[in-house]
Amino acid sequence: MNAGDLDSITREYLPALEAELREGLKYPPERVDTGAQMLHYHMGWESQGQATGAPGKRTRPLLTLLCAHAAGGQWRTALPLAAAVEMVHNFSLIHDDIQDESELRRGRPTLWALWGKPQAINAGDALFAHAHLAMQSATALAPMVRLEALSVLDQACLALTSGQHSDIAFEGAEHVDEEAYKLMVAGKTAALIAAAAEIGALAVGVSSAQRKNYRAFGHALGLAYQVRDDILGIWGETNRTGKPSGADIRARKKTLPVVIGMEQSAELRALYRSPTAGGAEVLNVVRLLQECGARAAAEDVEREQVEIALSRLSAAGPLGKAGEALHALANQLLERTH
Amino acid sequence: MNAGDLDSITREYLPALEAELREGLKYPPERVDTGAQMLHYHMGWESQGQATGAPGKRTRPLLTLLCAHAAGGQWRTALPLAAAVEMVHNFSLIHDDIQDESELRRGRPTLWALWGKPQAINAGDALFAHAHLAMQSATALAPMVRLEALSVLDQACLALTSGQHSDIAFEGAEHVDEEAYKLMVAGKTAALIAAAAEIGALAVGVSSAQRKNYRAFGHALGLAYQVRDDILGIWGETNRTGKPSGADIRARKKTLPVVIGMEQSAELRALYRSPTAGGAEVLNVVRLLQECGARAAAEDVEREQVEIALSRLSAAGPLGKAGEALHALANQLLERTH
Repeated sequence: MNAGDLDSITREYLPALEAELREGLKYPPERVDTGAQMLHYHMGWESQGQATGAPGKRTRPLLTLLCAHAAGGQWRTALPLAAAVEMVHNFSLIHDDIQDESELRRGRPTLWALWGKPQAINAGDALFAHAHLAMQSATALAPMVRLEALSVLDQACLALTSGQHSDIAFEGAEHVDEEAYKLMVAGKTAALIAAAAEIGALAVGVSSAQRKNYRAFGHALGLAYQVRDDILGIWGETNRTGKPSGADIRARKKTLPVVIGMEQSAELRALYRSPTAGGAEVLNVVRLLQECGARAAAEDVEREQVEIALSRLSAAGPLGKAGEALHALANQLLERTH
Repeated sequence: MNAGDLDSITREYLPALEAELREGLKYPPERVDTGAQMLHYHMGWESQGQATGAPGKRTRPLLTLLCAHAAGGQWRTALPLAAAVEMVHNFSLIHDDIQDESELRRGRPTLWALWGKPQAINAGDALFAHAHLAMQSATALAPMVRLEALSVLDQACLALTSGQHSDIAFEGAEHVDEEAYKLMVAGKTAALIAAAAEIGALAVGVSSAQRKNYRAFGHALGLAYQVRDDILGIWGETNRTGKPSGADIRARKKTLPVVIGMEQSAELRALYRSPTAGGAEVLNVVRLLQECGARAAAEDVEREQVEIALSRLSAAGPLGKAGEALHALANQLLERTH
């Protein structure tokens, strides 16, 4: 549980990962058309006259590389697979932003805000195709391993769309219980993180039991990650999260604190049944959530999932510095502020 | 060149193809969630309180099966691949309808018109993932053949998004020449039809030269298909095409007759520079296109591509009834009314 290991290993992996992503998306710019430029902007490589973009945290592909390494393999073998995982994640973000009509991501205008919804839908589709081609480019792996990795990835995509369907449907729903919330998040967030971990392990040929443990580790980590995201969506600072504060509340998102709060507070239920009002309403919702203990309860769920993640990770028996880094990654989640 | 062969072979293939599609999309309804119901409605299996849907013509997957058969293989071997091709086509239609804000397809409300754009974007994404899983389910094929087919499919998807990008960009462009139009259509339409033919051939293990011929046959067929679609978009009857007449003109689509017409007629160029007006304007555009010979010129392009298709098909040396049916399919294109 050494955060230093995670930092040093991240510094080693990230440039190679970024090069793999750029190769897959045919960067530098002189080799590309306008459609590709949209992807380069989204990936944080191009500013397009906007504020310089911070690329994403690349959490999912790092997980793939760490699991490959910790499972006793060469992390570089898993690079094309890690790039594919990150592309799928970003394709889903592009479509997510259109669906939520979010105008900001990582502090910059979203793709649809700059190029319009039709072109942004199309850019997301292109990235989805790129993700598959990235995975197919892993020619160092046996054909059956590549097919297996593709299958895990596409199953995750299917779960992702199913979770996304529920997430959108929940906005208009009067009541969502914790069980339904967890099912939704299992698809929307945990499925791809579970796949990221599993794919790393399967790339280097682990036993089926180990592969299951890596997958379960990723799944619990994903649930914890989403709950933290939900908490930050309400109590996070805009200058750290890059998203306008109160947006989840205004969109009537059924995030975990809200799901818990609605079970506790009749006032909150009544408030959420009426249409969105201004900033005062957001403050009122935040106050109600705090008062009924919804924040603390959500933090308990997060902690519980991190514990499950750590226990499945131990069962997987990860090796060396990468193993230590995986433990550190899970622990860091609890202190994440953006 | 026997249309009877095409009919009888279509009657043989279609039920098996439809069963394959239903299996991949987990039909019947009791096994599914709301997200899947949207796909079943789109595929024409569910009415959802609307007029009973005619399923699509399934042209692309029939092409895959015909090519597999004509190349000397068992057509059933290619069923999962054919289903994957049809799913990709339908994923692109779902997103296309959102991008164009088309409210009708095959005479029924489109997915976004019924469920809203966010859920329709998501349903398209789900279908894209399903397409890949369908292809992976072709376990009767060697792993390398499956990977090859997936690669051809994803390259086609990438070309498709590139063509779609141009198509959307062209709506706002003052001038589009025939060269740019052909590049756009090569991506938007021909790439997937070329892939459909190539995948059928590669599934049954043809020579590389034969595979190229099947691909080129599909490519030319696809160009001809789109030109016919463009012509029908202007001169077709709504009750046959299922689309409102004049929609392409109102959306300022740079279809081939319009591209040709704008090179001939200053009046048309001026008209297209001003914002969309009512029904009288549509009639005026149609009259101008007719007068300057744009319809006849577009029909020449179509005929030329059909001839290329037929010559590449002959070079591929297709066998038996399926070979005859492929010839008939290409010839039928010229008389298509919907």
